[in-house]
Amino acid sequence: QTFKRDDRKMSENGMVSRAKVLTIDTMNPTVKKVEYAVRGPIVQRAVELERELSEGMKKPFAEVIKANIGDAHAMGQQPITFFRQVLALCSYPELLNDSTFPEDAKSRAHRILQSCGGNSMGSYSASQGIDSVRQDVARYIERRDGGVPCDPDDIYLTTGASDGIVTMLKLLVCGEGAARTGVMISIPQYPLYSAALAELGAVQINYYLNEETCWSLDIGELQRALDEARQYCNPRALCIINPGNPTGQVQSRECIEDVIRFAAKERLFLMADEVYQDNVYAEGCQFHSFKKVLFEMGPEYSNTVELASFHSTSKCYMGECGFRGGYMEIINMDDEVKAQLTKLVSVRLCPPVPGQALMDLVVNPPQPGEPSYDNFIKERTATLSALAQKAKLTEQVLNTVQGISCNPVQGAMYSFPRITIPEKAIKEATDKGQQPDMFYCMKMLEETGICLVPGSGFGQKDGTYHFRMTILPPNDKLQILLNKVKEFHQRFTQQYS
Amino acid sequence: QTFKRDDRKMSENGMVSRAKVLTIDTMNPTVKKVEYAVRGPIVQRAVELERELSEGMKKPFAEVIKANIGDAHAMGQQPITFFRQVLALCSYPELLNDSTFPEDAKSRAHRILQSCGGNSMGSYSASQGIDSVRQDVARYIERRDGGVPCDPDDIYLTTGASDGIVTMLKLLVCGEGAARTGVMISIPQYPLYSAALAELGAVQINYYLNEETCWSLDIGELQRALDEARQYCNPRALCIINPGNPTGQVQSRECIEDVIRFAAKERLFLMADEVYQDNVYAEGCQFHSFKKVLFEMGPEYSNTVELASFHSTSKCYMGECGFRGGYMEIINMDDEVKAQLTKLVSVRLCPPVPGQALMDLVVNPPQPGEPSYDNFIKERTATLSALAQKAKLTEQVLNTVQGISCNPVQGAMYSFPRITIPEKAIKEATDKGQQPDMFYCMKMLEETGICLVPGSGFGQKDGTYHFRMTILPPNDKLQILLNKVKEFHQRFTQQYS
Repeated sequence: QTFKRDDRKMSENGMVSRAKVLTIDTMNPTVKKVEYAVRGPIVQRAVELERELSEGMKKPFAEVIKANIGDAHAMGQQPITFFRQVLALCSYPELLNDSTFPEDAKSRAHRILQSCGGNSMGSYSASQGIDSVRQDVARYIERRDGGVPCDPDDIYLTTGASDGIVTMLKLLVCGEGAARTGVMISIPQYPLYSAALAELGAVQINYYLNEETCWSLDIGELQRALDEARQYCNPRALCIINPGNPTGQVQSRECIEDVIRFAAKERLFLMADEVYQDNVYAEGCQFHSFKKVLFEMGPEYSNTVELASFHSTSKCYMGECGFRGGYMEIINMDDEVKAQLTKLVSVRLCPPVPGQALMDLVVNPPQPGEPSYDNFIKERTATLSALAQKAKLTEQVLNTVQGISCNPVQGAMYSFPRITIPEKAIKEATDKGQQPDMFYCMKMLEETGICLVPGSGFGQKDGTYHFRMTILPPNDKLQILLNKVKEFHQRFTQQYS
Repeated sequence: QTFKRDDRKMSENGMVSRAKVLTIDTMNPTVKKVEYAVRGPIVQRAVELERELSEGMKKPFAEVIKANIGDAHAMGQQPITFFRQVLALCSYPELLNDSTFPEDAKSRAHRILQSCGGNSMGSYSASQGIDSVRQDVARYIERRDGGVPCDPDDIYLTTGASDGIVTMLKLLVCGEGAARTGVMISIPQYPLYSAALAELGAVQINYYLNEETCWSLDIGELQRALDEARQYCNPRALCIINPGNPTGQVQSRECIEDVIRFAAKERLFLMADEVYQDNVYAEGCQFHSFKKVLFEMGPEYSNTVELASFHSTSKCYMGECGFRGGYMEIINMDDEVKAQLTKLVSVRLCPPVPGQALMDLVVNPPQPGEPSYDNFIKERTATLSALAQKAKLTEQVLNTVQGISCNPVQGAMYSFPRITIPEKAIKEATDKGQQPDMFYCMKMLEETGICLVPGSGFGQKDGTYHFRMTILPPNDKLQILLNKVKEFHQRFTQQYS
């Protein structure tokens, strides 16, 4: 692959042309292996269709509905007023003199600005994040976890949760051949994990969630996956997404205890993706943080099991994806490794300061007695109960369709129903070199304007097919969307029967 | 490095303890090689000293002055009013009804929000960045480059320039052993480059700038570095920082032409770090973009040479580091590689939207006739002329010190003077296992509270010593700082003579 000098050729019109330095054959091979279905070919086609519609092209639908990604505001969810007031105050501190802003918003803004160099969000923060924000995060975690202590030094603010997850995986990867780091991820998974592992050249170890029991996690399956993987790699980490993405399950406390015992016994670094911690809808379900359960299991576990937990401003009731705010908490990390982590994050200088400010507001929202409290609670409750209703509606409507079967959406923001695809359609897809559920979703997009992500983008048991659909569209739109999905599925099934 | 199961031990008090999964010996070895002096040990010590001062500990100074990093707002520079008004409007669109905001700020905010999903900065944008922002960037580049065309599809918005630079380097790395990708970087360099190359496992190829001729770039030196490197790696890219960081030189048009010819002849992908494009102070100096020069050299070059150019919201007159805004423009990239780039950036979903909004304002500021125009020009001019004065002042004062010699700060935000360190001090440092200039800067920090970065963090010719100092402190403070540096240097020289 070394290039020779003067490797030029003359094209027909006499112009000198040179082969490119950087070509598909000479680029980073690990990057080529990266796949990210949530923004894959189907989404690119959806964007094209939107453009074609706006240029006046005729389509069998009036608008494209992007139910492919958990992008709440894009689906009409309103931001929390208090959060945006504080962000405006921080952006343009002249507004601190504006009497129409509530006092609690002003005092939050004042505190954030005081923690910024030169009292400006335009300054770099410490690479680990603003001190006072990390302190607020620590207090939030202590409240959430019923008093389990949290050290602000264990908090790293991040550019969304994705940044934290990739950074942690990066630390963990080493070795070659059979000593290469293996990382256990659930199937179905959120494809950030597979993408990051591909790019880092780590080994992806699949453990399958059990669709029959509402996507529950079975320790026997973890053991099977681990034992098999030990033959060809060095498994070092176990990733859990709870509440589940794309599968929407909420893990029981017992299950989390089992997972922690398993990680301790098998010497695995635990990574708990808990960005949907406020998104729990099903009766009888409750969010338990890995941190809390770990500490309640006693010092045998709480002093030893290495855990990183991730949170974000993008989900829950706030849905502020565009700000790219997030944090990770690191438990029981070796001191020398932690120093390396701190050094590593310093290279990218700091997470975006507006995202840090927003994270601060999420962990330190208006308190009872403060002027913005009532409105904050009203807005938060409205969003969360609307989501709970939509979770129920989605499950109910999809389960009325023959050939679609859908677990309850206990939490998070997605339904991941199983779909029956007729043999003839599978054959047509295979002939085209397409995954059958990609074929299905692409056809749905072209016929209805609905953009879903095929299950193959998340992983699924061989021979099963799914799609992921967000429950985020407003109620009336969601109803229309679900009916269109229903009609499409019936048409598709008929066409290929 | 494979861990065995049940590798536990009982500690003296009977508690079970386990060896950590992730230790310094089992972590990613490439991460360990990363160094980033701008936020290295000296800055950590500065933060400690600040804490000690605030706790009332007595020091020989009243405050720590961080002249280690180009963090304008932290040094008291005021944000551009118009930019912050628009950001406040975008954060809290209720303010669009507030009559105290100027109409041009409102119309900019309106346009940005219309390009956001659900009219909210809380939505994810396209991974490549908001369409309308990329269009504005393209028009800005066309104006800047005297009409050379720019395609918005070649623009990628980024999380600061660092993100873009790392992403491009990531694409370029491949091969093993003698076929490993080599990347040419200037010495002295900005340590993001060495850090990214270490992490990616690429080969760093040093070419030395010529301190004697104001840190100019000599093609003969490029050739020497390249020829030597071809014996042990596959050189594929050439990085240029113009205006220079840490060295402050501004490249002449002739020099840029020579570099482009060299890159074409030697088949190197060009990476032009142009984040200081508005920071040009010296008479007779002017910023020439690589893109413009490339296109003016005719189709032999403009149709073939692969170029990525980087810009940011963090420097110039705006200094908005905390927002992490930036863009890169990609010229002549192979289509398949570009598709891979687009896929790669989709994994991290999108750059922070407030940073994108800010980038939009930088490339589309108030125009003549608009209500905010006069004030914008006044603020911009004040900041840039203050910087020009401080550049001059820094050079002048430092050159009055025997044993310090300082090139003119033609551009950017730093002075990088050469310092004479007495033999006795070199010996004492070496005995301590410290670089002599680290020893010098650490001593200066402890005695004066001034935080500089040793030249060894950027690279320098063997046997020469430097430090990097920002010119950002306000005039009176800079004067004090320079005097303190002067006194310290004289004391240090005396002490070790």
